[in-house]
Amino acid sequence: MTQRCIDLGEREVVKRITEILGILQRDDCTTAEDGERCLVWTTDMLHRKADFPGIASPWQIGWMTIAVNLSDVAAMGAVPLGLLVAAGIPPETELSFVEEMFTGMRDCAHRFGTKILGGDLDSHDELTLTGTALGWVEKTHVLRRHGARPGDFLCTTGTMGSAGAGLRVALVAEGKERGRIEEDPNLLALTKRLLEPAPRIKEGRALALSKSVTSMMDNSDGLALSLYDLADASSVGFLVEEDLIPVDPLVAEVAKDKEDAIDLALAAGGDFELVFTVRPDLIERARLACEFTVIGTVLEEKKIWIKSEKGKKTLEARGYEHMLGFSDQEPSA
Amino acid sequence: MTQRCIDLGEREVVKRITEILGILQRDDCTTAEDGERCLVWTTDMLHRKADFPGIASPWQIGWMTIAVNLSDVAAMGAVPLGLLVAAGIPPETELSFVEEMFTGMRDCAHRFGTKILGGDLDSHDELTLTGTALGWVEKTHVLRRHGARPGDFLCTTGTMGSAGAGLRVALVAEGKERGRIEEDPNLLALTKRLLEPAPRIKEGRALALSKSVTSMMDNSDGLALSLYDLADASSVGFLVEEDLIPVDPLVAEVAKDKEDAIDLALAAGGDFELVFTVRPDLIERARLACEFTVIGTVLEEKKIWIKSEKGKKTLEARGYEHMLGFSDQEPSA
Repeated sequence: MTQRCIDLGEREVVKRITEILGILQRDDCTTAEDGERCLVWTTDMLHRKADFPGIASPWQIGWMTIAVNLSDVAAMGAVPLGLLVAAGIPPETELSFVEEMFTGMRDCAHRFGTKILGGDLDSHDELTLTGTALGWVEKTHVLRRHGARPGDFLCTTGTMGSAGAGLRVALVAEGKERGRIEEDPNLLALTKRLLEPAPRIKEGRALALSKSVTSMMDNSDGLALSLYDLADASSVGFLVEEDLIPVDPLVAEVAKDKEDAIDLALAAGGDFELVFTVRPDLIERARLACEFTVIGTVLEEKKIWIKSEKGKKTLEARGYEHMLGFSDQEPSA
Repeated sequence: MTQRCIDLGEREVVKRITEILGILQRDDCTTAEDGERCLVWTTDMLHRKADFPGIASPWQIGWMTIAVNLSDVAAMGAVPLGLLVAAGIPPETELSFVEEMFTGMRDCAHRFGTKILGGDLDSHDELTLTGTALGWVEKTHVLRRHGARPGDFLCTTGTMGSAGAGLRVALVAEGKERGRIEEDPNLLALTKRLLEPAPRIKEGRALALSKSVTSMMDNSDGLALSLYDLADASSVGFLVEEDLIPVDPLVAEVAKDKEDAIDLALAAGGDFELVFTVRPDLIERARLACEFTVIGTVLEEKKIWIKSEKGKKTLEARGYEHMLGFSDQEPSA
C-alpha cells in the first residue's frame, strides 16, 4: 500500500527527510562554522492560503515574510547579515500590491537593522514567498535548543496569546465584520500582533551576550510545542506555573474565559517571542539584558507539568503544526 | 488605471522591486563581505507547472532544485558552504515521491562537494521548491558580471543547446511517446541534460583561482540573454563567431536544421554552463584551469554582433524569461 504524506503527518515526513539528508541538529537556524563565528541561516515558505488571512494588507504580508525569518535568527542570539526573498506571484497581481508588499519587507528588515540583499521573482498560481535570513554569532555565544539544566529558570520575553486572538478576529472578519475591526482599536491591535510580529532580535542578542542563558528558541508554533522541543533537545522537563504565563491583556477581548485565554497563549502560535532557560545564579545578569518573565523551572524528570490553582497536570503538546522546519528548524516556523 | 504585473512584464516588475529595496548589484549571487572573504548567496524558486516537465522523476526534480542554485555559486568562482530547501508539498503526495526527491537533492549536493543543512516543510497545492545556496570566495578572487574589457576573449564551458533540445523531447513525451525516449539513448541523454544539469562548481573555482577571468555568469536563460547581461554589466559589446559556438552534437537529433540548432544554443536556456571573458595575455593560464571554448571577443562598441558565413548581424536578445532573479541575480536562474 502506498503511503501519502497526509497519512503520515508532517512530523513523520520531516523525520524521513532528515534521515535522508543526514541532519541531526534541531535549532531555529542551521549553523556553519566560520572561524571564530557561527553563520546562522534559516528559510521559511509562506503562502496565501496557509499564512496570509484575507485582512492582511500587502505591506503586512511583506512584513510577516521577513519577521518570521528574523525571529529564527533572534533565537540563536545572532546578528542578522541580510535576507533573500524568492517570490512566486500570480501574473494578474496589481503592481501596487507587489510594491506595497516589498515595501513591507524592506521596512521590517530596516526596523531590525538589516536589509534584503536579493532574490528571485517567479510567476505562480498562489502567492508564495520564501524568505531566507543569514546572520552571525560568536561561537562562544551561540544559543541553541539544548543546554537547559535542572534548576534553571524557564523564561519568556513579551506577552502571549495575542497573535492567536488576532487570528480569531481575522477569521471573523473574513465574513462581514471587517468594519468592526477598523473601528475598535483593541481588535485592530490584536490583528497587528498577528500580522506585524516583532522578532526579538535585540533581546536575543542581549541575552546571548549576557552569557546567562542555557537554551533558547522562539515560540512561533505556540508556547506548548516550544516547551516540548526545548525539553526534548535538552533531555529535561519543565514545571510551568500557569499564573505566571504573561497572557496579553488584550486577549480578554476575544477569549471566552481565562482557560481559553491560557489556551491561546499555549497553543495558537504566531507570537514570535523567545522562550529560554537561565542559570539561577545569573538571573540578575539576564535581567540587565532585557525584560522577561520567569514562568517556571527546569526539571530533571522528562515531563512537562503545568500548575494552577486547580492542581498540577501534564501540559498538552498542542500547537500550530501547519509548517514544520526540518533539521535545525524543527518544528518552529 | 491599475497596472498588473503581466501587463508590465517581469523585467519591469523586477526593476520596481529593486528600486524599493535599494539594490544595485547584478551578479548571479548576492555578496556579503566577511573579512578576507565574500559570502555568496542565492535563492531560486522552482515549481511543478513552470519548471518540472511531466517526464521528470522525483529524483530529477530534487537534483534540479539543488543544481540551479549551485550554478549561481559556480558563476561567482565560489566554494559552496551548504544549502537550505523550503519545500511546499501537496499533502496527498506519496511518501516515496518525497523520499526520492530529497535523495536527488542530497545526491546533487554531495556530487558537488556540499550538503543540505536544513530547511522548511510546508503543505502547498502545487509542488514548490525554493533552494538557497551559500558559498564563499576570497575577496581578491570573486568573479562578477562586470569587468570585461575590450580585447578580452569571450568564452564558454561545455556545450550548448542540449537542455533546450531535451525540453522539446520532454514536451513531445507529454503526449504518448514516452516509450520512445526510454529506447533511444540519444533522446534519453538529451532529457538528462535538461533534468540533471551539472553546475560548473569545479570549473568556476579553477577559473577564479587562475586570476585570468575578467567577468563571468552562468547561461541558465540561454547564451543570448547572458551575453546581453554580461555586456550591460561591463558596458561593452561582443562579437560572437557563430561557428565557434559549441553546440552539443546530440542537438542534431531534434533540431530541424543548423539554424534551429544554433537557436537552441542561443535562446532555449537550461544549459547551466559558464560564460566568461579572459584577458588575452592570460588565455594560456585560463586553459590550465579547465576546458572551454573561445566563441568571440569583447568590443568597445556596446552592441552584440553574431558573425556567420552569411555575414554579421545583431544578436537577438531572446531567451528563457520565465524566472527572473532580482538584484544580483537578474535575470539568471
